[in-house]
Amino acid sequence: MRVHAYAAPGASEPLVPTTIERREVGPTDVLIDITHAGICHSDIHTVRGDWGPQPYPLVPGHEIVGVVAEVGSDVTRHRVGDRVGVGCMVNSCRGCVNCRNGDEQYCRNGMVGTYGAPDRDGTTTQGGYASHVVVDADFVLSVPAGIDSAAAAPLLCAGITTYSPLRHWGAGPGRTVAVVGLGGLGHMAVKLAHAMGAEVTVLSQSLKKQEDGLRLGADHYHATSDPQTFDELAGRFDLIINTVSASIDVDAYLGLLAVDGTLVNVGAPAEPLSLNAFSLIGARRSYAGSMIGGIRETQEMLDFCGEHQIGADIELIPANKINEAYDRVLASDVRYRFVIDTATLG
Amino acid sequence: MRVHAYAAPGASEPLVPTTIERREVGPTDVLIDITHAGICHSDIHTVRGDWGPQPYPLVPGHEIVGVVAEVGSDVTRHRVGDRVGVGCMVNSCRGCVNCRNGDEQYCRNGMVGTYGAPDRDGTTTQGGYASHVVVDADFVLSVPAGIDSAAAAPLLCAGITTYSPLRHWGAGPGRTVAVVGLGGLGHMAVKLAHAMGAEVTVLSQSLKKQEDGLRLGADHYHATSDPQTFDELAGRFDLIINTVSASIDVDAYLGLLAVDGTLVNVGAPAEPLSLNAFSLIGARRSYAGSMIGGIRETQEMLDFCGEHQIGADIELIPANKINEAYDRVLASDVRYRFVIDTATLG
Repeated sequence: MRVHAYAAPGASEPLVPTTIERREVGPTDVLIDITHAGICHSDIHTVRGDWGPQPYPLVPGHEIVGVVAEVGSDVTRHRVGDRVGVGCMVNSCRGCVNCRNGDEQYCRNGMVGTYGAPDRDGTTTQGGYASHVVVDADFVLSVPAGIDSAAAAPLLCAGITTYSPLRHWGAGPGRTVAVVGLGGLGHMAVKLAHAMGAEVTVLSQSLKKQEDGLRLGADHYHATSDPQTFDELAGRFDLIINTVSASIDVDAYLGLLAVDGTLVNVGAPAEPLSLNAFSLIGARRSYAGSMIGGIRETQEMLDFCGEHQIGADIELIPANKINEAYDRVLASDVRYRFVIDTATLG
Repeated sequence: MRVHAYAAPGASEPLVPTTIERREVGPTDVLIDITHAGICHSDIHTVRGDWGPQPYPLVPGHEIVGVVAEVGSDVTRHRVGDRVGVGCMVNSCRGCVNCRNGDEQYCRNGMVGTYGAPDRDGTTTQGGYASHVVVDADFVLSVPAGIDSAAAAPLLCAGITTYSPLRHWGAGPGRTVAVVGLGGLGHMAVKLAHAMGAEVTVLSQSLKKQEDGLRLGADHYHATSDPQTFDELAGRFDLIINTVSASIDVDAYLGLLAVDGTLVNVGAPAEPLSLNAFSLIGARRSYAGSMIGGIRETQEMLDFCGEHQIGADIELIPANKINEAYDRVLASDVRYRFVIDTATLG
């Protein structure tokens, strides 16, 4: 099956319209008629080769929402016409301890990424900047009523990436949560932590987006460029979600944690980080990392968002604006996620 | 009250016999006739000025066991003749959130160390290498029957320093715990983790102490000088207690953790550590630190040790061997703790 898509022909070339082949719908597969695909910052890093060489042409996109167009003979979870989503993974080994525990993202044999990854059948996966995709039903999520499809797309990566550590480290009433960085991930973290009942503080470089932050659900907003912030908030937080991939002064942020507090990175700078072990020992603090979430938890997140009517704040663009959107993402000129209207693909 | 003691006259001088003044027994105080004082590696660092300038002459010692000789008028917890212990703290503010939670070691106003610290009355605390000490009853622990006094002394620092993180991060049946370094702290970590029911692995530079490690309760023993150890044990542990204060390759040890595993430093190198955030993110791992334990938890640890008849493996020395013992500690020539017989003080 030949479908419309936008692909990067190489690391240094703009994305171009093309067509790609999708596999036949097997017994456990779902064919999705994609309606929306979010643009994740990591799409840009990946297609530009920042994280290593890629198989080109490459169709990015792992924040996918669409409608089920066909299901394989063994599929019972999804039906034609259902609104569904696909996130960062389309398969995993299913047998290792992590898969069995619902942590497919940490599959010991390597989860299969939604694009640019060798699939179990030997082909290379291609992502969501396309009119259709065929995905194993176990990796297809149900999108609940109450969220607009375009606003739902970024939940599949930005949503679960922040929801999972918030849940894992117990964000909720009586807990103080700080979110470092108010971009695509950060704005979701603020919405979700607020909906979970936590007291939410945004730590952003400047106060430029303060009004937005408070509107999104933050209780407090501080500029990290002001050194007084680190004195004033010392020992304050139970949990800090760091959504900034650039290097940070880890010790300074650890100093903002209360006893038993945790600083969680959901992105990672390419260079090693430096920290002083005393920053951890002085208050039984933890420095942790978290990567997206498992399939069961992703469904839980979507249901939570449906219940609380939470979607991403997005700017809907036609496919021919993808390259422009990439430049704007790199310039932090987006509030807070570009989503491609895939009806415009061709 | 003038009492016998051993003190360091300066950072570069050997300890010498002396006498020091102890305060009068106030209404909430306990006078302890010290019988045993352990030699902690940190005593050596402190008196030698490795961690900053000290008030000399300085009497070290924060692993103290003795018998109650007198109690103040308001003391109900301890009675004359009771066997008691004192660890690394002799006071804290009692009012901050951490003190109220029983985490006096993380007192926001600074806990008062057992020696070399400014006490709330303006005097400087002096430690356990002495015949007697006067301590506020709230910081005096009961030493249960079932443990020899000499073997009990190191529990007050080495015991609680390892017990607290083992408990906090859930060492127990079905959990895999690794202990890095088999010294004073490490040998306690092995005994305690084994008694808690965990599967215990020692990670030591060489296999020199393997026989000891297995006798102490370890199920497995691996040499970290063998690079294959890191391949073989990748993703294996739920918890790693790092008792080594020297710099380690943090990423290599993080790689030994299973999903949701935690690497806990109970000591800290003076220099900053380097780590790659991907080591954390790839399996929702945590890098944490822990410092001794609160008073309530220290009592719990002592009761646990009484119940399981756990003491330190010690070498009892007379006071005139303290300087020699310091040299042997620095040469790692001790299995596993020197304890001073304070009856020999003068």
